This record gives sequence, C-alpha cells and structure tokens, in this order.
Amino acid sequence: MEIALLGGTGDIGEGLALRWAYDTNHDVVIGSRDADRAETKAEEYETELASRGVETTVRGAANPEAAAGADVVVLAVPAYHLADTVESVADTLADDAVLVSPAVGMKRDDAGFHYNRPGAGSVTQLAVDAAPGDVSVVGAFHNLPAGRLANLDAELGIDTLVVGDDADAVDTVSALADGIEGLRPLDAGSLANAAEIEAVTPLLINVAQNNDGLHDLGVSFR
Amino acid sequence: MEIALLGGTGDIGEGLALRWAYDTNHDVVIGSRDADRAETKAEEYETELASRGVETTVRGAANPEAAAGADVVVLAVPAYHLADTVESVADTLADDAVLVSPAVGMKRDDAGFHYNRPGAGSVTQLAVDAAPGDVSVVGAFHNLPAGRLANLDAELGIDTLVVGDDADAVDTVSALADGIEGLRPLDAGSLANAAEIEAVTPLLINVAQNNDGLHDLGVSFR
Repeated sequence: MEIALLGGTGDIGEGLALRWAYDTNHDVVIGSRDADRAETKAEEYETELASRGVETTVRGAANPEAAAGADVVVLAVPAYHLADTVESVADTLADDAVLVSPAVGMKRDDAGFHYNRPGAGSVTQLAVDAAPGDVSVVGAFHNLPAGRLANLDAELGIDTLVVGDDADAVDTVSALADGIEGLRPLDAGSLANAAEIEAVTPLLINVAQNNDGLHDLGVSFR
Repeated sequence: MEIALLGGTGDIGEGLALRWAYDTNHDVVIGSRDADRAETKAEEYETELASRGVETTVRGAANPEAAAGADVVVLAVPAYHLADTVESVADTLADDAVLVSPAVGMKRDDAGFHYNRPGAGSVTQLAVDAAPGDVSVVGAFHNLPAGRLANLDAELGIDTLVVGDDADAVDTVSALADGIEGLRPLDAGSLANAAEIEAVTPLLINVAQNNDGLHDLGVSFR
C-alpha cells in the first residue's frame, strides 16, 4: 500500500513515516508544501532506517505529487492548514484514496491547554468538509506522543482511536495503525464522535505538565 | 479520614465505597436523599465486605447527615442533581471539608455518546458554583469503570485525573485515590482543565460499544 504523509516533515508525520517504513512493507511518501524540504527529510528518514538495517526508499515531494497515486493520504498538518492542504491535493487524489485526519485544535491559557472545538464540530469534520465529495475521510492518530513515535527505540504500548462513516476506509486505516508495533487501533464509531478524541490531546499535555516523570504521553483504554 | 459518598447508593458511589472500605482504613458514610435507602445499601456493602473477611461499619444516612463531619464529601450523583445535592448539604459541611466532583454530563445521538459541556465550562465548575465560598472543590473519579470498581475481584490498572485550585485539597483527594489498589491519581492541573477530563467518559462508552470484548473501560496515561 502507498501512504502519503502530507506534512510528513513535522513531528507526528516523522514518527508515522519512520514507524511504517520500519515496521511494515508499505511505501511511504513524504509530502510538504516545499518539495526540497520533503526530499531532504525523506533522505534523513532513509539514513535513520539504514542505520537500523532497513534499506528502503522514502520518497519526498510537494504535497500534490505526494498525494497522487497514494492509497492513503495522512493530513499530518496543523489544524489551521488542514483545509488548504486538502484543497491543494484535491485534483491529484485517486478516486478511491482514503484521507486520514490526525489534527487537533488547541488553545492555551494560564491553566493549561484546552480543546478548541471548531464550529464544524471537530477538526476531523473540517477535513470532511474540505475533501472532494467522493473521498472517504477517517479520523485517526490524534493522541500520539510525537517524540516516542519518532524514536524507534521507544516502546509505545498505546491505543489510537479511529472514527469514520465508511467501514472499508476505517478497516484500511485500522490495519495501517495495527502494523505499527505497540499501537492498537480501536474503533470509536462515527465521524460524529471525533471531538471527544481530539479533546484528549490537550489533556495529555496537561497531565504531562503537572506530573514529574511523565512526558510525551499516549493513552491506553483498559 | 471520614469520607461521605453522597449518591453512594449509585454505581460509582458503590464502587468507591467498597474500594475505600476494603483497601483503606478510612471511615465511609453512604449518603442518599432517602435515608432508608442509604442504610439498606450500607448494610449490603458491610455484608459484601464481611464475606471477604473485612469486618467494618459502613454508615448510611440522608445526605445532610452523611456530609456532617466528613473530611471529604464525594458528590457521586448525576450532573443534573449536582447543584441540588450541594445545596442540601451546605449547612452541615465542615468548614474545612473538601468537596469532590466526579460527575459528567453526556448526551446521546445515533452516533454514540457525547460530552454535554455546561455553560459554566464543566460539570466540576457547576459544583464550584454551587458550593459555599470557603469550601474547596476538587474534580476527580470522572472516568472510572463502575462495574469493575464495584467488583472487588476486578483489577483496575487505570488512572484517575485530579483537578483543583487548592493544592492541599488536591493532595488529600489524590491520596484517597492512591489508597485504592490499581488506581493511580494524576494531577491534571487547575479546575479550568476539567472539561477535557469529563469528555473522556462518553469516549470510553463509544470505544466500548464499537469493539468486541471491550466493556466497562478505564483509561491509562503512558
């Protein structure tokens, strides 16, 4: 399967790229608004993987080229770039491509981080609203610890919640998540359930900031 | 320490009562709007504990009598009874009592359960607003699996998040949580961070409803 990671030069994108390249046989393509930057990071990932004995090709390209032909396109960009990013690749997306939204909107005040719920209901819904009508959108990978994800020596032992209204697309994304060692996909139902998932991310930051010895947290349902 | 569990005849109240009576030396008092019902349930808890070799007294009383003299008063009532319950005990609360709010507001639609955020910002804040001005309020025990909590054979292995603006009160409640075997208290900061904690409860229900073999879930931060 070919996975395009738009915003694959950022922290969550880096972690997902490295984990999929290391743990699975999927083809990984890094997308960025800046093709040179995508290529540079792709080479860095290749070097990191080669140092661990995994000889693989990670392509880097501008977002529209990265998305072209991909089976799954992960929108690993900040929430405020989500709509623009989807629109920039709308013409090159395969008809049966699955878009995956891991973005979360947050705001910060003196007390800590808070979920900044968009008027659309969730950031995942913003991706749905921006996507071409025939493209399936799945919410997943919202609450991952970026540093641990990108450190192939770090054990995960955490869950990721998957939401979507197209059962086949949910199955595809859940299988991709399941391919990452130590990451368990759990079905959280419909896209309408995305907000509560997105709200976990500021909570993880608040918990990490208020407890010595905890940082870069994920979540496990048990 | 004396712990009053208002609404201690309900599911979360039952679990907390049994766990504290079984795992700690704290005195547990069950409160209810109906004193007879509180006494009946308290006797049931005593019988359950005695069957496990723990001979202890669990008192039952109407909420105002249960709250009188308690060091910690847990408001284990539905969100829509929270303000009424606080008001009913305001005159009998000790000056240095700590009120604990575990309640969550939820609504349900075809997709699943959703957090029903009150205009005050959180259900925990509703407790603050209803409480006498000199009484400290702490949010805790929001995301606990009721059935497992009330089953003393069930292992927990989960966390509870604690929020509050009075550090001593937070410490008191965290120590009470820590007394329950398999339950780890984590500090999530200020009361202003309560909404994201409360929103986890509908998420736990959605996850349980959409994954075979998972039910009555708690959460672990790792």
